[in-house]
Amino acid sequence: MVSTRERIVGASSALFMERGYAGSGLKQIAQASGAPIGSLYHHFPGGKGELAAETLRASGRAYQSLVEAIFDAAPDLVTGVEWCFDGAAETLRTTDFADACPIATVALEVASSDESLREVTAEIFEGWLRALTARMAAGGINPEPARELATMLVASLEGGFLLCRAAKDTAPMAAIGAAMVELVRGALPSNQH
Amino acid sequence: MVSTRERIVGASSALFMERGYAGSGLKQIAQASGAPIGSLYHHFPGGKGELAAETLRASGRAYQSLVEAIFDAAPDLVTGVEWCFDGAAETLRTTDFADACPIATVALEVASSDESLREVTAEIFEGWLRALTARMAAGGINPEPARELATMLVASLEGGFLLCRAAKDTAPMAAIGAAMVELVRGALPSNQH
Repeated sequence: MVSTRERIVGASSALFMERGYAGSGLKQIAQASGAPIGSLYHHFPGGKGELAAETLRASGRAYQSLVEAIFDAAPDLVTGVEWCFDGAAETLRTTDFADACPIATVALEVASSDESLREVTAEIFEGWLRALTARMAAGGINPEPARELATMLVASLEGGFLLCRAAKDTAPMAAIGAAMVELVRGALPSNQH
Repeated sequence: MVSTRERIVGASSALFMERGYAGSGLKQIAQASGAPIGSLYHHFPGGKGELAAETLRASGRAYQSLVEAIFDAAPDLVTGVEWCFDGAAETLRTTDFADACPIATVALEVASSDESLREVTAEIFEGWLRALTARMAAGGINPEPARELATMLVASLEGGFLLCRAAKDTAPMAAIGAAMVELVRGALPSNQH
């Protein structure tokens, strides 16, 4: 069974994706979660900042697991990269471009205005980069280009969400996925091309 | 001389970059511009939405001119791409990671919650993509890969701003710039490699 605390975090994550951190009031989060506002303060005595930190961490973990599951299921690294971008485009389409990265909007909002939430977003991105660097290396890429490719993958996926959501069109994600596949293929030792 | 209207738009652009759309109140914008709040309503009778649309368009034009000036000054396409990412990293460093893309934060905030501002951000990104596609083509890239590379450039630059601002570190931008240079170099006809 989903606990009240989990419902609050889930509602907060959905609202952050839809309208960002500043645009999501505690009242709206309470309403969306079906919990009374007093319950929010009971579970998160630190208020919106504390709730946001936990929401970001939970979303960051879930998102990382999703991407890792895609790479686990793929027969090889290049196919895994392809599936990541295909999956991102599919999710955008089926959710009318609402369900994208749960961290990016808040990360941009707080980068220059809330040091403790900025640090939370930095930890999450660093965790993604490490996990993807390890996948790249496991797929046959050398350590230095592995970190570079992981960085490019996360950046271009995030930029892809931005362009697709603005345009309400998945064409940018298809173009970016194709470019990313080319980069990864080119970085594989020549016997694996 | 800078008009009051221009001062308001400038202050609004700076605040949007620093804390996003929802986090920038009209009162704060008035204060930052040195104009009385009544002056904001005089110049923008449509209120915050109208001011935001004009701010986004003005910032989008300025940003596009900046990128075009970099490509104009560069001796060739690959160097132009290199300078774009170097310049982005330098701006981040010198502004303590505050001065990045003037459109991205607002674009993510409004994508699912304000259709008319979403359309403004879509037009701006499309203008950037067209300008960059033309530069890629002028630099010797074929039409189809030119659009794909332009999309990857904008997406990875945007994702780079996100990762760098979160980490307060320009290392991601350097990695992304190197990957982008490799992609563009690889897409040039072989006699220009």
